[in-house]
Parts: sequence; structure tokens; C-alpha cells
Amino acid sequence: MKNKVLFIVTVIVVFLLGLLASSIVNRKNEAKYKYVPQVEISENEPRNEEWGKNFPAEYQSFLQTEQSDFASFQGGNAMRDMLEEDTRLAVLWAGYGFSKDYNQGRGHQYAVEDIHNSLRTGGPKGKGDGPMPATCWTCKSPDVPRLMNEIGVAEFYSGKWADKGEEVVNPIGCADCHDSKTMKLTITRPALVEAFESMGKDINKATHQEMRSLVCAQCHVEYYFDKKSPGNEGVPYLTFPWKNGMSVEAMEKYYDDMEFKDWTHKLSRAPMLKAQHPGYETYLTGVHADRGVSCADCHMPYKSEGGQKFTDHHIQSPLNNVANSCQVCHREDAEKLRANVYDRQQKAAESRLKLEDALVKMHVEAKKCWDLGATEEQMKAILMDIRHAQWRWDYAAAAHGASFHSPVETARVLSSGLDKATEGRVKLARLLAELGHNKPVEMPDLSSKEKAQEYIGLDMEKLNKEKEDFKENLLPKWLEAAEKREANYGSKQASVVN
Amino acid sequence: MKNKVLFIVTVIVVFLLGLLASSIVNRKNEAKYKYVPQVEISENEPRNEEWGKNFPAEYQSFLQTEQSDFASFQGGNAMRDMLEEDTRLAVLWAGYGFSKDYNQGRGHQYAVEDIHNSLRTGGPKGKGDGPMPATCWTCKSPDVPRLMNEIGVAEFYSGKWADKGEEVVNPIGCADCHDSKTMKLTITRPALVEAFESMGKDINKATHQEMRSLVCAQCHVEYYFDKKSPGNEGVPYLTFPWKNGMSVEAMEKYYDDMEFKDWTHKLSRAPMLKAQHPGYETYLTGVHADRGVSCADCHMPYKSEGGQKFTDHHIQSPLNNVANSCQVCHREDAEKLRANVYDRQQKAAESRLKLEDALVKMHVEAKKCWDLGATEEQMKAILMDIRHAQWRWDYAAAAHGASFHSPVETARVLSSGLDKATEGRVKLARLLAELGHNKPVEMPDLSSKEKAQEYIGLDMEKLNKEKEDFKENLLPKWLEAAEKREANYGSKQASVVN
Repeated sequence: MKNKVLFIVTVIVVFLLGLLASSIVNRKNEAKYKYVPQVEISENEPRNEEWGKNFPAEYQSFLQTEQSDFASFQGGNAMRDMLEEDTRLAVLWAGYGFSKDYNQGRGHQYAVEDIHNSLRTGGPKGKGDGPMPATCWTCKSPDVPRLMNEIGVAEFYSGKWADKGEEVVNPIGCADCHDSKTMKLTITRPALVEAFESMGKDINKATHQEMRSLVCAQCHVEYYFDKKSPGNEGVPYLTFPWKNGMSVEAMEKYYDDMEFKDWTHKLSRAPMLKAQHPGYETYLTGVHADRGVSCADCHMPYKSEGGQKFTDHHIQSPLNNVANSCQVCHREDAEKLRANVYDRQQKAAESRLKLEDALVKMHVEAKKCWDLGATEEQMKAILMDIRHAQWRWDYAAAAHGASFHSPVETARVLSSGLDKATEGRVKLARLLAELGHNKPVEMPDLSSKEKAQEYIGLDMEKLNKEKEDFKENLLPKWLEAAEKREANYGSKQASVVN
Repeated sequence: MKNKVLFIVTVIVVFLLGLLASSIVNRKNEAKYKYVPQVEISENEPRNEEWGKNFPAEYQSFLQTEQSDFASFQGGNAMRDMLEEDTRLAVLWAGYGFSKDYNQGRGHQYAVEDIHNSLRTGGPKGKGDGPMPATCWTCKSPDVPRLMNEIGVAEFYSGKWADKGEEVVNPIGCADCHDSKTMKLTITRPALVEAFESMGKDINKATHQEMRSLVCAQCHVEYYFDKKSPGNEGVPYLTFPWKNGMSVEAMEKYYDDMEFKDWTHKLSRAPMLKAQHPGYETYLTGVHADRGVSCADCHMPYKSEGGQKFTDHHIQSPLNNVANSCQVCHREDAEKLRANVYDRQQKAAESRLKLEDALVKMHVEAKKCWDLGATEEQMKAILMDIRHAQWRWDYAAAAHGASFHSPVETARVLSSGLDKATEGRVKLARLLAELGHNKPVEMPDLSSKEKAQEYIGLDMEKLNKEKEDFKENLLPKWLEAAEKREANYGSKQASVVN
């Protein structure tokens, strides 16, 4: 009996070894087939289509970022006008670019097109003109690491957005995350490297799995433009406020300590902070990060085509691709998993909208105080409550996906925002009473985006006209100049190998 | 080759079938050994030790509920004085029994002992005396279904707590959840059956897995004493407010529509609701319920002793027993899983304490308004804000485990409570200004439980004295009478079978 069992086990083991050997040979063939380079990619190559010649599967999937966006929650594929959907936002951002124009983000493929079209970048007429600094290009294109290598980092951040319009033309792509020689994931944006340094960490020690999130964290983070960066005074130097940590309180303290503000609110005159999109920071506080799941695991899961396994570069909401993302670990139905996500999002949205309502009231009530002759001294504590409450709201709202990535932390942040709002509104009620207005303050008509924008004093006709002029006159020149330049290094850089 | 593989597969299958057959025979032996009854359990048998003669493994594990409690978060085994740990609670419950005495719950084995000792049940001197109705016994003992069967449900709920002191002596146990003949899980408390009926559901259609939560839902729920129950007017009839649903809003609407209040707050005079312990309701909104995990799966996981598999009746926090509970599904380290739970609890606690602070302020500010001559009309909307804010706080606080069972829903509820608090406090600030007090209201000294209880006007010396008298005089008589009665049906009910 014992011998028989031993014999059987041996036969099985030998058979399985055979299978394994066959599999290894097949994989080797795949690899061989896959990695024969068609062209040589030069160090600063910004054109995704050049990289795509060597990596057609990755490139073709990347091109699909044209087809869908992250609008999985409310559905739909078009670019949604968030100011139209929620007119309160215009009040919250009065005096800041986002009150002019704020659409839901689209796929990476649209990065350059959308920043051309946004009213936030205004209608520059030429170099040195327009509202935004060159720093605004930083996350939009693989032309950015190219330019930084060519002219230097601080030089890149210097000057106006319009100054570099001819240079930055390729949408976010290959060279933003990959080393052109080894194809290894690489950090191309100095802000992330410097943020690690500020925390006493060395990003070069990150594991490959960590890199599968860190390449995203080059951009999907909270940041600000530091005009006091030592050695680069006056330059809006892209900086992540991570020195004290990445929690909403740690970053708030960082900004408070240096008395930084993104802008002064037009109604309340509060020294405001704009949370950009602290997606990486909030992701880190959630259970997926805790379990070692990277951004790419869900947003760029492995895919198989024609016997080749590769990373799907169609970066999108996992809800559009549950089978390859969620269901690798979770055994529930796709519909149930989606419902679970929506449930978390809806609960967060409920609290967020309550805080949003309170913030609108605070700005309008503060304006009323000023109108009634309040002094700086009387307003000081109130304005800090507004700053802190809105920072918390924005941290939760702007961190795309936070209500799913980290629903409990997001809820905690929103609760602490509501608590700040309570304090602020009680102070406002007392001050209003002192100023002779002991009753509710009349709220503006926010029944449409137009009315909200009119209320905060925006001349939308002028802004739209300026943008149209820009698109008609300057933008075509940028694109023409870029085409010429690229045609030039087309022959220089892309030499055929075989 | 093909034949050889077929031969090998056949050999393996036959071998596995042999293993299976052997396992089945062993299991049958186990079952036979287990189910030979030592005594016959009569229908109304309330004594756990009698049931224990037939089910020693279950009974012995049940006895361990003496050894630990649910204090897993902050640790420790002793009965914690929650009013001492958080003196604000006394203010929140001013005018209600919980402000006198509120200890953390202990194991089921202590159910009767703890209700004897609680200051909330006062110091009755005999039948018809004391602050609480008989209904308060409902969840404490298997003597309850016995009595209900013997005298009727409404009759059980009638009269004072002291009236049934001789009758209710066995702590929560076997007969609360099991049928004495079939041992199947069974619902012994009419309130749950009636609550299902009120929702148009039939609890008899519940699956066995649902029953593994529903037996717990007989008690671990929100409830109130309905004195207007048709046919039983005047009797404090135990009722679950589930007719509109189990969400915090649905139950609030239920109470608001009938203008029900548990008590009038002593400071603010708000018509208050006391959330009891909506553990089942909140559990249902969480991911474990969504995945079909029952209460028993985690709090009473299967256990094996001497080759017998049985349900561990040592009902306790799964954090004391991670290997048999969490790790059946979750592959992470026990320490990591515990840390994950603590993280959720801490985040909920942070928001809950913020709301608690706001509630204390609201009660004290409302008192100040009354002191300054506010009218009922001026106070009406404020008192409803207080009622609704505290109901939300209590729903999240009293639902033991809610911050783990359903952290996102708990956070949503707390946020909505903070929102109500904002509205209420702004109204209070305006009214205070109108009444000539346009500044912060002085807060009481809550640095100790004694100071807090003194502030709300409790005569603790008197309450403690009454309780001591009760324990010295009436309680021994109850226990003596019960012993006699049980000795009597001891011979009557427990006939030896073999």
C-alpha cells in the first residue's frame, strides 16, 4: 500500500514538473516576442506614440483613456460641469480660479486639451500674460520631465503658464512613469522626491509594489506653490506639505505655521486653503493600502491578450472593470461590489453636502458682518474657523475616490469640519447680533451656475471671450510650433533598431 | 500515457472516497455521543444548569461569560463606570435613570445581578414600589418566557419592577434562544415577533442563518415602552419602533409622529429620546451583515473539543478570540485585525465626543435661556434640534460595536447629529442675544462624576442609601422565595431519562 502511494505521488510530481517546464518555455517565448524593441527610445522622448512602437499592448490600452472617465458614481462619459451640478461650489471658491470653471476630470489622454480649454488658465495673448504660473503644467505631460532636464527645475517653474505653451503638448504618458532604458517605474517629478526628503525618507528605497502607487503620487496629492523656497525665492515652486505628516490636521498645521494661504476669499475675506487632490494621502489611510494593494492593482490591473500578460494602461475606475480588479480578491457579484461602493460614496456625500451648506452660510454671514462694519479683530477667529472647516471639506471632496478609498477617515474629516462650522457659525451669530442683525442672513439665489457666478462678481462673458480669443489666436501657434519642433527631433531620436 | 493518467486518477479518487467514508463514520459516532439526553427539559425550564446536563460543552462555555466582558477596546475585565470615565454623560441624561448609574455591560451571566445592583432600578421596599416598571426585566432572564407563558404577556409587562423580583432570578441563558424539545433556535420575546409583523414580515420565515442573529435581536435593539398599545392601554408594552424602517431617521420619524418622549431633560426641558442599544439595526447596515455573517459567527464561533464541534457559548468580543472568529475569513495577523478595529473605533469616538461636547453646550445654553425668561414658543425649535442631535449621538454611542459593525453608517449618523447641533447652537446664540446674553454661557465644572451629578441635582447619598437598604432587606427575600419555588419544580421538571 505504502509503496503504491509513493509510486503514485512520484508519477504526479513528475507530471506537474513537466507542465511547469512547458509553461516556463512558453513564457520565455512570450517574453522574447514581447521585448524585441522596434525603436530606440531616447532619454527625453515625450511622445507616447514613439514608446508605443515598442509596447503596442500597453500603448493601445493607454489610448483607451480617451473613452471613459471616472464618472462611475453618477454614470456617464461626458465632461460634467461640476459648478452647474452644485452651484454652491462657486460660492465656496469665490475669488479663486475654480469658481470660474470646474469640470470633472477626464482620462489622462485629455490632460493637455483640458488645460488649454479651462477658464482657469485664462486667455493669455502671448508670453508673460495670463493668470497662472508655468508650474500649472507640471502634471500634464511627459514634456515636463524633458523640459526640466533641458532647462532645470526652478527654471521650469518660473514664468507664466503661457510661456511654455509651445513646449508642453503631449498628454500624460509613458515618460511620466517609466525609465526609457530599463522601462522600470521611475519618479520624474522632483516635488515627490523632495517631499520624501522633507519627511526624512528616501524614495529610492521604495519597493516595486510601492512604486506602483508612488508614480501616481507624483500628481494625485495635495500640493501648493511655495514662493519662499530657499534659493528659489519668488518662484512658485511646487511643494507637497508633508513634513508633519499627511493627515488633514498635519497638513493644516503645516500651512497654519507658515501662514500660507492659496487665496483670500472674496466674500468672507478668509485666508483660504485649496485642497488640490490628496488622493494618495487619503488612500494611505484606507484598508486597501493597509493590505498592500497599490493604485495600479485596481486602476491598472493585469490583462491578457494573445497569450501575453501585461498591465492594462487604460487607467480608469475599477467599477468599469470589476472582473479584473475587485474580483481578483473579492468573490462577490460585480453588481454587489458596485453597490457597496455607491453606498459608501452616498453616505460621504450626505455629510459633505451638509458641511457645504454650512460653509456657504459662513461665507455669506461673514460678508454680512463686514458689510455691517465688523473689525479685523472681531473677524479673526471666525475667518480661521472658515479656513479650517473648508480645508476639511475640500480635503474630503477633492481627494477623488476618498469616500471609497478610505470612507471612515473621510467621515472623520467631514465630522471635524462640521464641528469647526458649528464653532464658526455660533461666533458669527454672536457677532451679527452685536452688529445689530440678530436674525438669519438672507442667502443668495444659487438656483443656477450663472446666478452663483454673478453673485460672486464674475464677469463670465469677458472670461469666455478671452478664452475664445486664446483658442483662436495663440493656441494654434503653440501647436504649430510644437509640431515643427517634434518633426525635428523625430528624425533625431527615433532611430529604427531592426 | 492516457491510460496511466486515468489509472492514477482512479486510485486517487478511491483513496479520497475511503477517507470521506471514514470521516462520516467518525462524525456519526460524535453525534451519537453528543445527543444522548441526561435529563428531560420541560417546556418552561429557566435553569441553565438543567439544560447544561444535556449540553455540557455549550453550558460550560456559557459559564465563561462570567470571565470576560466586551471591554476589548480599552481593555480590562472589571465593570467600568462610564459616568466616571466621561462625566458629560450625566449632563446628557439629566432627569433620566442613566445619569444615576451607567456601567459598561458585562457578560450574560451577570444580567440579573447587575440589574439588582444598578441605581437605575432604585431601592424598592416591596411590591408596587420603585421607579421602574416590570418591563425592565424583559431581557434579563429565561424566567421571562416562563412567566409570559404562565401569566400572559401584557400581565408580565404590568406593574412595578419589584413586583416580579421573586420570579426573575436565572441569568440570560438557554431558554431565551432554544426550543426545549428540538433545541432549534427560537424567538421567545413577543416584541421582536410583533416588530416583524409591524413591518409586514413573518419572522417564522427567517432562515437558520438569520436566526443566528435574530435570537440576539430579541434584546440588542432599540425599543420603547408603549403605554398606548391597543387593548393594553396604560401598560408599558415593550415595542420596537421599526414600522418605518430601522435607520436613525426612520425611527426618529416614528417617535416624532407619535410625539413620544422617553423623558423631559432636566436642564434644557427638551423632549428626549434615549436610544437603547440598536446593535442589530446598525449591524444590518454594515459589511458583515451584507456578506451574510451572523452575530453568532463572530461572537459564538464554532469550537472543537475532544473531537466534538459545537457552538462556543462564551459570548464575547471576537477580539478576544480572533483565531476562531475573524481569521476564519481574514488572513491577516490577529494584531493587525485588532488594530484595524481600534482604528475604526477611535475615529468614531473622535466624532462622537465632538457631538457630545456640542450637546452639553446646548443643554446648558438652553437652561440659560429658560433662566433668562425664554418662552415655550421661543424654545420649541431649539428643543427639537437638541432632541434630534442627541438621538443621533445616542444611536451611534449606545449601539454597542456600531463603530466596528458599521463604521461608515455610524459616521454618517454622527455627522448628521453635528449638523443638527450647528442649527441648534446658532438658534441658541440668537435667542441668548435676544435675551440680553450675547456671549458664551459659562459651562459647569464636570471634572468628576460627583460634580456632574451634583450639577444636575441628583442626591446620590439618598440613592445609594436606598439601594443599600434594598440589597439588605428586600433582595434576600426575593432570592429565598425563588430558591424555594425552584426546589419545588426541581423534582417536578427534571426527570432523569437514562
